[in-house]
Amino acid sequence: MPGNTFGHSFRITTAGESHGPGNVVIVDGVPSGIPLSVDDLRIDLRRRRPGQSPLVTQRQEDDEPEILSGVFEGRTTGTSIAILIRNTDQRSSDYSDIRDKYRPGHADYTFDARYGFRDYRGGGRSSARETTARVAAGAIAKKLIAEEFGGVVVGYVLQVGAIRAKIPNPELVTLQQVETLADGSPNFVRCPDYDAAPKMVELIDEVRRDTDSIGGVSEIVATNVPAGLGEPVFDKLKADLAKALFSLPAVLGVEYGIGFACAEMRGSQNNDVFVAEAAKSGTRILTSSNRHGGMLGGISSGMPIVLRAAIKPTSSLAQEQPTVTRDGQPTTIRTKGRHDPCLLPRFVPMGEAMVAIVLADHWLRWKTVRRMVQ
Amino acid sequence: MPGNTFGHSFRITTAGESHGPGNVVIVDGVPSGIPLSVDDLRIDLRRRRPGQSPLVTQRQEDDEPEILSGVFEGRTTGTSIAILIRNTDQRSSDYSDIRDKYRPGHADYTFDARYGFRDYRGGGRSSARETTARVAAGAIAKKLIAEEFGGVVVGYVLQVGAIRAKIPNPELVTLQQVETLADGSPNFVRCPDYDAAPKMVELIDEVRRDTDSIGGVSEIVATNVPAGLGEPVFDKLKADLAKALFSLPAVLGVEYGIGFACAEMRGSQNNDVFVAEAAKSGTRILTSSNRHGGMLGGISSGMPIVLRAAIKPTSSLAQEQPTVTRDGQPTTIRTKGRHDPCLLPRFVPMGEAMVAIVLADHWLRWKTVRRMVQ
Amino acid sequence: MPGNTFGHSFRITTAGESHGPGNVVIVDGVPSGIPLSVDDLRIDLRRRRPGQSPLVTQRQEDDEPEILSGVFEGRTTGTSIAILIRNTDQRSSDYSDIRDKYRPGHADYTFDARYGFRDYRGGGRSSARETTARVAAGAIAKKLIAEEFGGVVVGYVLQVGAIRAKIPNPELVTLQQVETLADGSPNFVRCPDYDAAPKMVELIDEVRRDTDSIGGVSEIVATNVPAGLGEPVFDKLKADLAKALFSLPAVLGVEYGIGFACAEMRGSQNNDVFVAEAAKSGTRILTSSNRHGGMLGGISSGMPIVLRAAIKPTSSLAQEQPTVTRDGQPTTIRTKGRHDPCLLPRFVPMGEAMVAIVLADHWLRWKTVRRMVQ
Amino acid sequence: MPGNTFGHSFRITTAGESHGPGNVVIVDGVPSGIPLSVDDLRIDLRRRRPGQSPLVTQRQEDDEPEILSGVFEGRTTGTSIAILIRNTDQRSSDYSDIRDKYRPGHADYTFDARYGFRDYRGGGRSSARETTARVAAGAIAKKLIAEEFGGVVVGYVLQVGAIRAKIPNPELVTLQQVETLADGSPNFVRCPDYDAAPKMVELIDEVRRDTDSIGGVSEIVATNVPAGLGEPVFDKLKADLAKALFSLPAVLGVEYGIGFACAEMRGSQNNDVFVAEAAKSGTRILTSSNRHGGMLGGISSGMPIVLRAAIKPTSSLAQEQPTVTRDGQPTTIRTKGRHDPCLLPRFVPMGEAMVAIVLADHWLRWKTVRRMVQ
Repeated sequence: MPGNTFGHSFRITTAGESHGPGNVVIVDGVPSGIPLSVDDLRIDLRRRRPGQSPLVTQRQEDDEPEILSGVFEGRTTGTSIAILIRNTDQRSSDYSDIRDKYRPGHADYTFDARYGFRDYRGGGRSSARETTARVAAGAIAKKLIAEEFGGVVVGYVLQVGAIRAKIPNPELVTLQQVETLADGSPNFVRCPDYDAAPKMVELIDEVRRDTDSIGGVSEIVATNVPAGLGEPVFDKLKADLAKALFSLPAVLGVEYGIGFACAEMRGSQNNDVFVAEAAKSGTRILTSSNRHGGMLGGISSGMPIVLRAAIKPTSSLAQEQPTVTRDGQPTTIRTKGRHDPCLLPRFVPMGEAMVAIVLADHWLRWKTVRRMVQ
Repeated sequence: MPGNTFGHSFRITTAGESHGPGNVVIVDGVPSGIPLSVDDLRIDLRRRRPGQSPLVTQRQEDDEPEILSGVFEGRTTGTSIAILIRNTDQRSSDYSDIRDKYRPGHADYTFDARYGFRDYRGGGRSSARETTARVAAGAIAKKLIAEEFGGVVVGYVLQVGAIRAKIPNPELVTLQQVETLADGSPNFVRCPDYDAAPKMVELIDEVRRDTDSIGGVSEIVATNVPAGLGEPVFDKLKADLAKALFSLPAVLGVEYGIGFACAEMRGSQNNDVFVAEAAKSGTRILTSSNRHGGMLGGISSGMPIVLRAAIKPTSSLAQEQPTVTRDGQPTTIRTKGRHDPCLLPRFVPMGEAMVAIVLADHWLRWKTVRRMVQ
Repeated sequence: MPGNTFGHSFRITTAGESHGPGNVVIVDGVPSGIPLSVDDLRIDLRRRRPGQSPLVTQRQEDDEPEILSGVFEGRTTGTSIAILIRNTDQRSSDYSDIRDKYRPGHADYTFDARYGFRDYRGGGRSSARETTARVAAGAIAKKLIAEEFGGVVVGYVLQVGAIRAKIPNPELVTLQQVETLADGSPNFVRCPDYDAAPKMVELIDEVRRDTDSIGGVSEIVATNVPAGLGEPVFDKLKADLAKALFSLPAVLGVEYGIGFACAEMRGSQNNDVFVAEAAKSGTRILTSSNRHGGMLGGISSGMPIVLRAAIKPTSSLAQEQPTVTRDGQPTTIRTKGRHDPCLLPRFVPMGEAMVAIVLADHWLRWKTVRRMVQ
Repeated sequence: MPGNTFGHSFRITTAGESHGPGNVVIVDGVPSGIPLSVDDLRIDLRRRRPGQSPLVTQRQEDDEPEILSGVFEGRTTGTSIAILIRNTDQRSSDYSDIRDKYRPGHADYTFDARYGFRDYRGGGRSSARETTARVAAGAIAKKLIAEEFGGVVVGYVLQVGAIRAKIPNPELVTLQQVETLADGSPNFVRCPDYDAAPKMVELIDEVRRDTDSIGGVSEIVATNVPAGLGEPVFDKLKADLAKALFSLPAVLGVEYGIGFACAEMRGSQNNDVFVAEAAKSGTRILTSSNRHGGMLGGISSGMPIVLRAAIKPTSSLAQEQPTVTRDGQPTTIRTKGRHDPCLLPRFVPMGEAMVAIVLADHWLRWKTVRRMVQ
């Protein structure tokens, strides 16, 4: 069972390498009749794009998507949607000297162990360049959940190094706040705490000057998600969301709601209290706090879904690091390719995409559960 | 797509509720010829069993497994293996008053939202009783990985409340240390730090006397795992392991290697250095530290795999908690059923089982990757 | 990827051998709220049961199902349903001398080639005894399609040897006609052409007296199936139905509609003409003939679905047949176990079950395709 | 669960319509190290291509494939392979008048029933143009099975209308015989019986002059397939092969070995006798006849696999046919687009591709079954 497909009812299959002709995604399971255009895809692809700000890698890629199928007269047809994003700035020469050396922190050695064979140009399939395909698919998932249940997914940078933002109400953060500072200038670091944001920028700049890199934490919030999404046992919503985020490069930890802090809690402190409020369609059940991060028993509760992912510092460094060659000889390596000193700002659209894809999938799966009068 | 199946090449499908006739698992994909008996299943089922110690729920269940298929003359045949574990101590009357109330922290409300219908006897399918099926399947997975590559999975309790054990070498912890104290008596709390263990026991006892509960962290370690397991993109080994652990009840966070601590690291500190050592079959590549927790690019590196899961405090409390009825009326609830004051000791075999299942699955998937001379 | 699971949204997983403790099926994906009892399962299990008539094997099995999960207070809960059917008349001694001989026409040799190992008691997993699990699952599928869209699946014996029934209107055949003759006595051969039925009985009796067996054709018809079921490319409804029937033992051919006779047709003769008729909900499109067997482009057209399966003569014979031993020595074999001289009468409920399972699956899959106002 | 993916361990996912920008396939699960180039793909794409002979549609398409990923320095890397084949001769204007009419025999009506929406340009996703993607993937599957076990798949036209070829030894037919006549000229009809071939050509020519079309039967043979491929229950090799062929457009029937003729056979006539012969690696078991078409119990026996598919006459006709509009008004239609008077010659590479894909998949699946010494 190969691993380039994700999701069941909303299902994406991807292909593509860092320095090949391009990246492709086939999105399957999109209901018919949803408005979709290339412009819908461009928004998040630009947020993910290299070269977008001084904080990120200076590789230049247009990341211009081409829709090859599944859309007719501006609407989805219900059949599979293929999207191609060509690579345009693949300077393979940058990578030729890593052919026989294992870059620390990268998948060079583990790919060799797996395949006995490796596309050594910039990581090949292990490069984060594959996430263009995910982000394009995520844009479709975002359309689907917005059209079908008004769902919204917003991510942001919560922490860089030791600088942690204060976000008292995750469910109120808007895309606007993530993308733009109070003065209307771009929020390069994508942190909606405008006190913390400039400090994060400064820290990232400092580590770059040190030819080093820095880790962080991203928080991703989904609102307007109806109660009832998620399967009871293995395909709990929390399990599929965690898999989705862990499948992204550099993620070392995922938590939701109160997360690891639950270890020190007592049940009487931790349980969220159910309350009822009047709603259009009768009584609506909710909780007066959200330590459960919007999921109980792995099924959405109708409260905001709040997730956090820990991202390691970029492994590629412009400083010399000790390593070994493929045949085990000690050597050193210094990555000359272009890379991000901190992965967090560009992680945000990737994380949002994966969360939206899981929600789209579980929404479609939910449709089969309840009886339906024909 | 329903969610009662887990894994691809090693695949388990489960059914069963807290108060129904029993729990069933069908394990599919086990190669032929592996020795297997009921005794192999009993070991971990006893470690998971209620009533095993003063620290856990006093529900009495034999948890005696019956192998219904797939084994002939003491060996697996290659066809699907069904195991039945009957419930024997299901006192439904304990649960009759929760029929119309939503227990805080439980899946009562979300099941209703999903199905419009609920087996209210002790949580039904959402009860942790379903994990008997996982533990039985995990015992088969453990046999498989032991037989095929010498793999071993050991879990233990790392933290209860604010008490955190010191485990300097996770990869050296043995099942013996987890199960038995220095004096040969049972290690009820399953913490191999014998200084921390009695403090944990004391804390759990205290919260029980307070009709309360407490959370914690479990660490699970897999050793002797060959390099090369895991798919590069969506089915990264780390992603499937995280899904496996998050699919267990009460897990709010998962991390591996350095985990969330990576947020404050610089790349130059965090990257593990590759080194080579002489091995029987030529040179062997390893790393001199293991902040990467045995996986790079989502593929196993040959180093020990080290994971941690955060477990929330038991939601069922013998003290009165405010909640609402199904039709939104305020009420209170006090759980009279038997339950654990701390989930951690019994989580250990569940977590081990899920990790072993993922490793068995990826091992079988790995077999298809490399070319094979017939 | 092991092969004991069938279907996607309505999904069954089975286990069990001819001479083990029993057969198990886990049915996953059944929506909540469908009435279900053991009685619903008994109907078709009795039609499949050995010993039911003088025409079939005299092995005595109660085939009494036990529902282990997924049903509460007489209705499905939406979670997985496990059913156990114990074997009670497994006389292994009957089979001891086939331990080292390959029975012609059976899977003995191919199992050995696959697994290097074989449960030689009556075929083990390759025995048609595994179809009890399918028939139990099919009973649930029949309930689902009846409840959700009024769908009905009826199968019957169309041909035994050279005797072919005349069934001018397949869509009008009823279960009653299949099970009972005009005089109210049991229709042992399950052929609703009451001229042909006694001839078939006579032929089957003749081949049994000859210690021989005979093949035939079964026709299966599904009515009231809404237009629109089936996926356009790989999971065409015709493709999944064909796989379902071919997965049954002894099936060597499947066709639908005009089937193989299409080879000699011209397009102008073969195309069914679309016509419109007034219906409650406006105009209804149908075709004036049904050479397309209810599927166009692999998607249901709303016309009756008509399939035929060719079943080979039973391979087990009470007469001596030449064969070889496992190590290639020439020998002879005579099957002393109990077996059917003609598989057709008991095939009918198996074929119906598989067709109903595919329709249930595609019905659930269809629910995700169209946009839905929440 | 959407239906644009086929296979499990060797898995293809496709997208593309008749008149969109192009067709895409992502092939996943190909082991690393297999030599692969665009030339390998061109061979069968040319055999499938429109305009290749006077017998087929005169639509002009280069069908030039571009490999977008998964191949590095002439060998597969083990990661997913994406192939794009652009459409170049899509004259949508040909199809504008079918926008509101249902073409008899086509999927126009059933697509509308399913999606409420249709790409009416030449059938959109229901057009046989999607098979370019299958044929490209099939070329990779052919390479895989040739490299890993010497497997060969050859298909040909067995029957057109009432003209049936005599092929005494299906397993001896070569690609050369299928593609080229005795005099070295192209075998347009792909029938290796050189007496029948010219009669078939004449018949096809006749029906075209009559603005009509004609059906037929194709036979596909796989040789050198090792014994042991196929799963015992649902994923029997025969079941997956049948699904594969039935998933192709216009297939109304599939049979293997003796097929539907088994209905009139007695077991004593039908069973193939096992025999043993000396082989390099000890004794080899085979059968002295091959009525079982190379599969017993759904598992390959090592004998040649012989399948036949019945193909209906092309539904598109240049003569006027009665039909209805989308709103049910009677009308007539005459297809002005370019189409094949007989689908058989171009079906051959499609059928071969699907058979090769199933064999590649089951070969990879087989690798997980047997124990492996690391």
